[in-house]
Order: sequence, then structure tokens, then C-alpha cells
Amino acid sequence: MTTIERSSLEVAVVANGQALSVPVYKIRGQGNGPNVYIQANMHGAEVQGNAVIYQLLEQLKSLTCLGDITLVPLANPIGSNQKSGEFTLGRFDPITGENWNRGYHFNAQLPVEFAKANPDLSSDEIKSEFRRAIIEDLELSKLNNPYGAKTCQLLCAQLQRMAFDADIVLDLHTGPISSRHLYCPEYAKDRATLFDIPHVLFIPSDFDGAMDEASFCPWWQLQQAYQAQGREIDVMVDAFTLELGSQEWLSLDAAKEDSDSVLSYLQARGSIDSSIFQPKQMTRYACMLKDYRAFYAPQSGLVEYLAPFGEVLEEGEPLVQMLNIERYGDERCVTQVRAPEPCIPVLHFASASVNQGTELYKVMTNFFTL
Amino acid sequence: MTTIERSSLEVAVVANGQALSVPVYKIRGQGNGPNVYIQANMHGAEVQGNAVIYQLLEQLKSLTCLGDITLVPLANPIGSNQKSGEFTLGRFDPITGENWNRGYHFNAQLPVEFAKANPDLSSDEIKSEFRRAIIEDLELSKLNNPYGAKTCQLLCAQLQRMAFDADIVLDLHTGPISSRHLYCPEYAKDRATLFDIPHVLFIPSDFDGAMDEASFCPWWQLQQAYQAQGREIDVMVDAFTLELGSQEWLSLDAAKEDSDSVLSYLQARGSIDSSIFQPKQMTRYACMLKDYRAFYAPQSGLVEYLAPFGEVLEEGEPLVQMLNIERYGDERCVTQVRAPEPCIPVLHFASASVNQGTELYKVMTNFFTL
Amino acid sequence: MTTIERSSLEVAVVANGQALSVPVYKIRGQGNGPNVYIQANMHGAEVQGNAVIYQLLEQLKSLTCLGDITLVPLANPIGSNQKSGEFTLGRFDPITGENWNRGYHFNAQLPVEFAKANPDLSSDEIKSEFRRAIIEDLELSKLNNPYGAKTCQLLCAQLQRMAFDADIVLDLHTGPISSRHLYCPEYAKDRATLFDIPHVLFIPSDFDGAMDEASFCPWWQLQQAYQAQGREIDVMVDAFTLELGSQEWLSLDAAKEDSDSVLSYLQARGSIDSSIFQPKQMTRYACMLKDYRAFYAPQSGLVEYLAPFGEVLEEGEPLVQMLNIERYGDERCVTQVRAPEPCIPVLHFASASVNQGTELYKVMTNFFTL
Amino acid sequence: MTTIERSSLEVAVVANGQALSVPVYKIRGQGNGPNVYIQANMHGAEVQGNAVIYQLLEQLKSLTCLGDITLVPLANPIGSNQKSGEFTLGRFDPITGENWNRGYHFNAQLPVEFAKANPDLSSDEIKSEFRRAIIEDLELSKLNNPYGAKTCQLLCAQLQRMAFDADIVLDLHTGPISSRHLYCPEYAKDRATLFDIPHVLFIPSDFDGAMDEASFCPWWQLQQAYQAQGREIDVMVDAFTLELGSQEWLSLDAAKEDSDSVLSYLQARGSIDSSIFQPKQMTRYACMLKDYRAFYAPQSGLVEYLAPFGEVLEEGEPLVQMLNIERYGDERCVTQVRAPEPCIPVLHFASASVNQGTELYKVMTNFFTL
Repeated sequence: MTTIERSSLEVAVVANGQALSVPVYKIRGQGNGPNVYIQANMHGAEVQGNAVIYQLLEQLKSLTCLGDITLVPLANPIGSNQKSGEFTLGRFDPITGENWNRGYHFNAQLPVEFAKANPDLSSDEIKSEFRRAIIEDLELSKLNNPYGAKTCQLLCAQLQRMAFDADIVLDLHTGPISSRHLYCPEYAKDRATLFDIPHVLFIPSDFDGAMDEASFCPWWQLQQAYQAQGREIDVMVDAFTLELGSQEWLSLDAAKEDSDSVLSYLQARGSIDSSIFQPKQMTRYACMLKDYRAFYAPQSGLVEYLAPFGEVLEEGEPLVQMLNIERYGDERCVTQVRAPEPCIPVLHFASASVNQGTELYKVMTNFFTL
Repeated sequence: MTTIERSSLEVAVVANGQALSVPVYKIRGQGNGPNVYIQANMHGAEVQGNAVIYQLLEQLKSLTCLGDITLVPLANPIGSNQKSGEFTLGRFDPITGENWNRGYHFNAQLPVEFAKANPDLSSDEIKSEFRRAIIEDLELSKLNNPYGAKTCQLLCAQLQRMAFDADIVLDLHTGPISSRHLYCPEYAKDRATLFDIPHVLFIPSDFDGAMDEASFCPWWQLQQAYQAQGREIDVMVDAFTLELGSQEWLSLDAAKEDSDSVLSYLQARGSIDSSIFQPKQMTRYACMLKDYRAFYAPQSGLVEYLAPFGEVLEEGEPLVQMLNIERYGDERCVTQVRAPEPCIPVLHFASASVNQGTELYKVMTNFFTL
Repeated sequence: MTTIERSSLEVAVVANGQALSVPVYKIRGQGNGPNVYIQANMHGAEVQGNAVIYQLLEQLKSLTCLGDITLVPLANPIGSNQKSGEFTLGRFDPITGENWNRGYHFNAQLPVEFAKANPDLSSDEIKSEFRRAIIEDLELSKLNNPYGAKTCQLLCAQLQRMAFDADIVLDLHTGPISSRHLYCPEYAKDRATLFDIPHVLFIPSDFDGAMDEASFCPWWQLQQAYQAQGREIDVMVDAFTLELGSQEWLSLDAAKEDSDSVLSYLQARGSIDSSIFQPKQMTRYACMLKDYRAFYAPQSGLVEYLAPFGEVLEEGEPLVQMLNIERYGDERCVTQVRAPEPCIPVLHFASASVNQGTELYKVMTNFFTL
Repeated sequence: MTTIERSSLEVAVVANGQALSVPVYKIRGQGNGPNVYIQANMHGAEVQGNAVIYQLLEQLKSLTCLGDITLVPLANPIGSNQKSGEFTLGRFDPITGENWNRGYHFNAQLPVEFAKANPDLSSDEIKSEFRRAIIEDLELSKLNNPYGAKTCQLLCAQLQRMAFDADIVLDLHTGPISSRHLYCPEYAKDRATLFDIPHVLFIPSDFDGAMDEASFCPWWQLQQAYQAQGREIDVMVDAFTLELGSQEWLSLDAAKEDSDSVLSYLQARGSIDSSIFQPKQMTRYACMLKDYRAFYAPQSGLVEYLAPFGEVLEEGEPLVQMLNIERYGDERCVTQVRAPEPCIPVLHFASASVNQGTELYKVMTNFFTL
């Protein structure tokens, strides 16, 4: 029987002087498997990952863990509590407008310098020494900077500090109204089919600020740096963003399915000692990130979303029906907005009215099956 | 074939100097039926009424109208455009926090004074003279006040000015996540079954600021004032608020059903000359407004809404399941919040996370069938 | 030397499961003076009252207190933390739009019933028994209601619970951009000159939801009820709202002046044993609440506020200059909006652009000196 | 006497179907001076630039213009109308959180390709042909994209389309609470002293999304591209961001000073034919952008801003005083936050309460005089 240690970590201090904290659940593994870090709810409205962590905890209780597993639900207490009407406005810092999932730290110099300074370390030494280096750099530049750091950076740095101890990082998000989809770095393509997630976006291995990138980029760039010096090493960290459906939606039953899917992956990677979790047989569509296209409203108005998720929409088939009731009597009152090319809808906007230029749908184009 | 006149009315001027306006559709009737005023979308996120107005226009085109019918969709341009993340924050004035549907004008003195001053007018004279009086009072106190009037009051006054010309006023709203329900003044109880709406709330005939009350209260109090003088007259105006389902949701098909339902009522009241629209056979539950209870969250946390709408929930059956993942390991992690007495759930909150004290559900208690 | 006890009280639990609390400072008096309750910052942006509480604590340390004094700064932790851009949006509950200072409890039945049931109690018995009754009623209807209570009501009930133990209640607020002003109940007119506050608004003794009213209304209505039964008793509680200047502004020096002013009042009322705090010689203007008029923008546009606070503005003198740069070239581009009658400006709106109908200024009309 | 043409341009269409537009004032010059584009109020709360445009129009009426001058006040109608309490929340798109001043278009390929394809064009031909190329590219990628473009990009593209016709672009902003300061590209260093602005930030010539960069970057990179091919040409466009003081503040008098300052610059550059506008004698401090440092709050709490703008603050002198009234009784209740090195404060945050990590001040370090 696995022991689950509960603690909490202060990650922000808000205007009235109170510290806000995140719960931290920790399972000590046997020390012979990769360490895992899983967090959820970095965006305030995206709560379903918390339910997945609940189901994971319920299942891990009776499993044998080879590596340590750290689970952090409710990862952004400022975001969770940023209510605006009947909606959780927790996508960006309300003061600065910055996306909470873009405040992670990355120092592009570090991998290059490290590889140059340590050409001959063993693989294990590289892993432990480089880990120490990125942690030290994070602490110096964000947590102990004489000019301070942004609220968003402080929060991210503390989560990142925990994630830096892990070999596997899973960041649990959701879309607005959305199907399940997975952001998978290109170098980890073969792991995409270990999850029961029908849509996969292969992302380039560059840094754009998010947790998954912040976790794998240093290691991927380290591998690139050694490669440039003529030495082949592995990318030593896996990191994924899992989008688990829609925001503002909680289902413990659906969470159980996602928990099974995460356990399939962890089993395949050797973090848990089990043979019962197997990826499902299913069609998995994928495309490259550049082919994952946002479709912006060509006009403003009221919107009825027509295109279902997960099915191929042919060119010219309708994405949405728009009502412009202010134009009743002319042909622009009810119109349909159509797919400009064959695509698979993955998510759509959460409101029934849009400005011109609001993102209506995100769709996969040039997709293929895995 | 009915002619539909389209115009627009400026109802607000916003900070950048632009006037915002509402579309106004007008059908001239034959002059031998009650005049009708229908508006929709006073709260920015409640868009479905616009679709009902669309379907009404489509159907009225080929019907014979006995009274004039005025239809005003998109009634609150400030509210429609108040976006906050992926949600339309159009329930209250963003500057003052005032509910847009509480800015209507009512002068409680007027009915009493009018009845005293005009004891012997004929019923028709009462109707036309009192109408003139409330319009004049509205203009003096709100539209031509030397101290000005609030943004909300100016908007409401201009809508109310149109509604004051009508004998029947329908204000189309929606709940957050909601079933269809009807606010019906107690004096108009017998008209509740003319709509295909399964939940009816009988409201007292006092003024609390909303459009329906602002429309019928003067006439109801006039009837009360004459009664106090020993004369019986009818309440000469009918006004209802129709809640057409959930906010941030548009469906032209569902709107067609509500359009049929409104036409049933209009036909029964003699506004249109038709016999094809008949109320559906259905169970209609009703309760008094005081028995329409809000249930507030006893604790904060993540919420899975369990209780379906429109069915009797017995005492002790669960309304919601709550996840407090920060407490994993103790019995308060997953809990169920239960109905304190038998009730029929009508609507619930739109977000999956709540503060302690957030309204979780609204339910009918002491309900009965019509 | 006075001992100041520090504790904290949980007043809300927010979506991520954390309790938010208010600091409570308590000084035990000698038991021979009226008890005092002072709170600040019920609206999130109105921080200056916290500085006044700081200065009061600094001064009370070396004063002799006859009654107990309870001081609660940062009274609304949800409001304090509701940031929206570079502004604290803490005036209304972000979910419901309700003004935080309108959630207090009042049961109009209670005073009447109490006076009827207890015609012959002594004055001291009335005080202690009625206090017990209103506390019990508060707990039953708000803190222990099977349907729960609103977030706003829960917060208010817990502050009110502390205030109900006091004979004197001071609620420290600020205006938007504002001079100092005092809301004083009509029955306590003679205490208005004990504060160094140049503008006084005499409010009727009815309940409109605010802390001051919630504190004195039960007692004032109790006095009315006994009076109706032919017995004269005092209104046994004093309560005031002090508006200490502008929101989003902190000054420890200015706070010292207000602390002196509060101590003058407390000394005069016998709560502290001192003779050094005397009201300043100053012109104090007053008017009745109905004569405290809001002036709403007759047009939208950009605003330069011209009228200074605290000086008589004659009819026709300019309140604001408005720039409508979208109309350059016609005479409406730069206009002045003028006082419709003689008045004393007390506060103005905080933004430099307004909608038609935004409250520009609040002014005293029919004012007089005290 | 100069003729000022007034028109308006639709730049956005919002949810209720209405188009929002910006006023456009155009003065036709004699054709022998550089064309000028000036806009104001891209961020909704930053209104003072509109007053400067008013004063410029008043002065230009009686001046001789050599080049065309286009003036666009109220440049962002969505931002101007995004009210949130007593504050204009117009810094970021309320739906996406994107800074409105980061939506401009830039195609880094274009200058390189153009220089390669046109090595031998004359300077005049380069100017007209390259201008045609960037306009065409803007239209293709933003205004006529089959997937549409974001609301923010559509707005920016239409403003940028006008700016692309000019040789001089001035974007009028303000800080939160701020002194006047100027963002000046490094290549245009010698023009910094033509304005009466005491603080100058020299920015690298790379693109980061803002209007000034979007205007000069293509031309600066074109110069770089020709230089790489061995040919020297001028950077043919000047672009600056002027920060005119504080947001939510309007003063026609102060605007007159800034209008004089802009006219000094325009006269020196040959856009107007005058000799009366001369830069003031004044101390102008400058630093490189990398030395313009934000200072983030090391703790949360209430803030009294102490450091005045425009004066050298020595290391260890206080920037702010912080009140943490929840800690009364320990030494952390009132604290001072001090400058970590010598600096000149330029702006500070607009609210009196902050989270840990809120930007308190922006200061120039390693500053020098011009």
C-alpha cells in the first residue's frame, strides 16, 4: 500500500497580506523508475485535471511506484479565485493580462554553456549536474532577484522548481469547449500513442513560455548542444500538456478514464510497476503545430456551433451558423461560416456571441493518423 | 403578407462618443387586437431570445396581426459587448454593478393620484389617459432630468417608452444553466398555461425594478386604487418574463418551439388572427416566488451538478457532488450536498467552482401542478 | 499601557478551498465606557481607513480605554484581492454584482415584537436583552440557514456579529476621488461636529443595507417602537460611515489627522479617558441625504474635472470640461457642464472618460453650516 | 489657413453587430515635406493624447503644412469602452488578454527579400516600392486571410495601413501614474532632444509588436539588408512612442505644452513650415531599454509611493512605504522598500495595494544626460 504525503506550498501573497498555497501530494517510489510531476488547473477555469489527480491518487494508493510521483492540483490559487460573473477569469493575471502559462523560466544560454564546459561527463552525471544547474539558475534569476519578479513568474518558478526534480512532467489543462487533445514535443512522437487521446499536436521543441516547454526545452537543447559537439545523448525529460475536454466542467467518471490513460503512459515509461494499464485501440489523429489553425470570426454576431469534434469536416462544410438579428430582412441575417479546407475541429469558443476576429474554432489541417 | 418595418433606436452613448442602438422591428396590426412589445437579451449573455424573435419574425410574416407588434432583439448593446474572457459579462453595468434589469422607472404615487383625480372616466379613457400619464412621468423623471439619469436608467427608459405603448409585454431572458421557466404575475395566473413552459413562478404584483413589473405594476396598482374607491376595472396590461433555457447558448431549432409557444399565447389573447397555435399538453409545475429558493454553497470547491431539471428531487437526494482535492485523504474530499426538502431544480450556476455562499441551484419548493 | 490583542477571523472560503480572514485587534477597556467597533476597507479600493486604524492603534497604546475597542482593518479579503488591471475592483461581489456594503442583516419585525413583549424592562435590561435577540436572529437567519446564505451575507454577518457587541460603530470608507465626508443618522445630529470632517450628510434612520444602518437601525426602531407604546428610551447605539478621501490612496500622515478626529469623538462619548483630543474649529457644511445629489453625464466623452471640493459652486459655474475629439470642428468638441443650482462638490468619478449617464459628481444642495 | 478633413474609419465590429470606428483628421500638405501619422489612446485609459491631438489641430489650423498630416484620436474604440468599475480596462483585449499595442504586423522576410531583388533601385524608388510591398503584405496576411485574423490584429492592421503611408509616426500613450517619457529607436538618437520630454529610453530596433516598432522596423531592417549587400541607405521612417504623463487624466493646458513639443519636432523635420517652435532648454535623462528596470513588490500590502519622478534616487533611498496592517505589533507592519542602485523613477503603479510581484516602479538605471 502506497503512502501519500500531503503538504502545501505557498506560491503567492495577495493584496490583503494572505499567502495562497497549492496542495502537494507526494508518493515516494522505490527509486528505480523515472520521477513524475503532474499538475492541474494552472488556468483557473480548467478544473477537470483536479478530478484526474483525484482518480490518480485513488488508483496509486494500491499500485507500486518505482519513481517518485508528485501531484499538484489547484496549481494557481490566484487564477482559481478570479471570478467574473458566472465564470472563472483565470487565464491571465488580472493586473497585467499575462497568460499564467507563459511565466516559466528558460535560459537559452545554459545548455550551450553546459555542454561546452562538460564535454565528457557520463550520461548520469550530465543528468544530475545539469539538473542542479537549471535549478540554480531558476533560483537566482526569479526567486532571488534584487528587482523582484512578477507575480506570474514567482508562481511559475515555484511550480517549475518542483517539476525540475522530475523526469516526466504532465501539465493538465482543458480547452474552452473542447475535445481531448495532447501537445506532444516532436522528439517524443512515439509516446503519443501511449495516451488515450484522439488528437495530437506535435510541437516544435522551442520555448514559448509554457510548463511543458519549460520542462523539456533545457534537456532538448542540451541534447542539441552535445550533438553539435559530436556526441549523442538522449533527451532526458518527457513533458506533455494534456487537454482534458472543456473548462468549467467537472466529471469524476470522465476523470477515471483519463487517469487510466495517464497510468498507461506511466507504466510504459517504467514509473509504476503494473501491467494492467494498456492504451486503448482508437483512431488518433495528429498534425504539426503549424497546421493546427485558429479560425477567426469573419463577422460579429450570435453563434450556433455546428461542427462536431473529432470528425473530418470537408472543405465548404459549416463550422458555425451565425445569427445577425439586427439585419433581419436581408440575406446576411442567418449565415453559415464554412471550412476553408478539410479539417478536424478540436475545440470552439465558449460564448454564443463573438466580435469580428474572435477565435471561433481550432482545427487540425494536414492531419494524419498515428 | 405582413410588412415588417426595420428601424433602430439609439439607447446609449459610450465613452468613445459612439451611440449604441437597438434594432426595432415593427408590424402594424389591423387595429383590433392588443398591442404587443417583445424584447430580448437585456442581459448580455442571454442570447436565445434573439433567436426566438427571429423565428417569430419568420412566422409573423405570413400571419394576420390584429394588434401592433414591436420586437426588440439585442436590447442592451452595452451588455452584449461586455466581454470578460470567454464570457459575456452583461448582467450588470460594469461601472456601477447595477443589474441592467433593475433600472426601470416606476412612480407609486401616480396610480393613486390618477384614480383619485379621475373616478368616472370610462374604461377606454382610463386606458388612454393613464398611459399618457405614465409616459409623461417617465420622460420627465428620466429622460429630461436636469441632473441627468444613470446609464442604466437611460437605457431602460427608452425600452420602457416603447413597452408603455403595448398591452402585452414579453421580456425574453435565460437563466445561467437552466430549464425553461416563466415569471407570471399572480393576477394573470390563468394565462400561465398558454405558454409551453414547464415551470411557472407566480410573482407578487409589486415593483422590484424589472421590465415585467415596470410594465404591469402601474396598471395593477391602478386597478387596486380604483378598487379602493369601490370601482372594479381590469388590469389592462399583461407582462411576463420568459426564461428560455441557458445563457451563452443559441439554437434556432429550440427557438422555433418557443416561437410557437409565444404565438399560442398571442393567439389566445387576440393579438394575431390564427387558430393553429395551441398550447402543448404538458405537466406545468408552479410555485409562489417566496417558495422559489436559492441554495447557496455551504462550502467552497469544485462542483459536479447532479440534479436534473424538471424532476422532483426528494429530501436528501443530492444536488451536487463537490470535490475538495486540497483535502485528499480525509472524508471531506468528495462530498454530496443534498436537498433540504422536496424540490424541483430549475437552474444551476454556470461555473464548476464556487465560493462558499455562491448560489448553486434554484429550486421550486411547495410546488403544485397547473 | 494598553494591551492590544491580535487575532484573525475567517470570513470567507474561496474557490480553491482556502479560508480568507480579517485581522481583529482588541483592546479591553475598564468596563465603564461604551464599547467601540471600527472597521475599514469593506470596499477593496478604499484602503485609507487601514492607515487610520494603524494610527489609532499607535495612539491607543498609550491611552486609557474605558470601553472595549475592536478594530478590524482589511475587512473584506475578497474585495481587497479583486484586481482588474491597475485597479481594485472591490466594490461589488464579482459574481453577483452586489455591493459588498449592502449585505448586512436587518429584521424589521424584531424591534416591534421586542417592545411589545417587553414593555417594562429597565433601560439596561432592554440593552442587554435586545442585543441578545438581534444576535440570535442574525445567527439563525444568516449563519445557520439550511439553504445557506450568500457569500456577501456570510461576510457581512460575521463583521456584524462583532459590531453587535458595540455601542459605537464606525465604518471607514472613502469616495472615488473625494473630500472627507460623514454619513450621520438624523437622530445623532449633535455628534456630527465631534469629527473634523467638513461635509456631513444627514441620513434618515431607515435600513438600506449598509453597516452603519445595520448597526443603528434596530436600536432606532426599538426606540420608535417604545415611543409608539408611550415610553421614551434613548437610541442606544451610535453608528457612522466616515469617508476619508479618495480610494486607491494611502497616506500615513493624513491618517494621523483622521485618527485624532476619531479620538475626539471617542473622548466626547466616554470611550477613552482623555482630554487632549478636541474637535477642530472649522466650517462644517451639511445637507439632508435627499439633497445630496448625483450629477450624471449628459453626454459621453473625455472629462477634465474642474470644480474643487468643499467650496460653494454657484448655479451655472462649470463642474467639468468635456472633450469630444471625435467632433473636432463643431462647437460640441469642447464643452462645459455646469451646476444646475448652487451646490458644494464632495466627490467625483475616478476615470477621465465617461458614458452618457455616468455619475460625474456628487454635490450637496440646500446645504447649511453646522 | 489649413483645411482639416474629418472622416471616420470602421476598425472593429462587436458582438451586437455594430461597427466601431475611429475619427480620422487629415491635413493635405504642400507635398514637399515628410508625411506624418499621429495616433492616440490605443490603450483605453490613456486619454491625454487625445487632448494633444486637439491642441495640434487648433495650432495646425493656422500653420503651413509641407507634408500630409493624419491624426487619429480615440484609436481603440473597444479599449475606450472597456469599463471595469471606475477604471477603463483598455490595456488588453478582454477576451484574449492580449495587449492591444502588440497586435501589429511585421514580416521579417520582406526587407531581406526586397533588398536582394532590388539591389539597384534609386533611393526614391526604394521608398515607394518597398512601401507598396509592406502594404500589400499587410493586406494579404491580416485583412484578407481565409482564416481571418484576431480582433486585435484587425484593429492594428487598419491603423498600421494608415501609418504605412507616413514618413513620421507618433504613437501617443501614457504610463499608469507617470512622468513624460519617450521611446526612441537607437538609430534616431539625435532626434530625442527635439521633444520637450525629460526621460528618454533608447530601444533596440527589433520588433516586439508595438506601433512604433511596426512602423520603423521594416525600414531599419531594409537599411540593414542593403548594408549587408554593401550599400548605404537611410532609415526612411521615424517612429516614436510618447508617454504623456498619467492614464485616466485629462488636461487641455498640459496638452498645449505637448503640442508645442510635437511641433518643434515636426518643424525640425520639415513637416511644417515654421520657425516659432523650438525645443526647450531642459535636462533630458536617457538610458538604454535594458537599463529601464521594473521593480516588483517583494511583498504584498498597501502602498504609499514615496519616490518622486525625474530626480535621482540614491541606492538605499525609499521607493515606497508599505503598510501591512495585518501584522500590527511586529516590525514588518510598516516597512520601506528601497532602491537597489542609483536610479531615476519614471512611473509607478496606479493602485494603493499590490500583490507580491506587482510592478511597483519603473526606473532608469545607468542613465546619462543628453
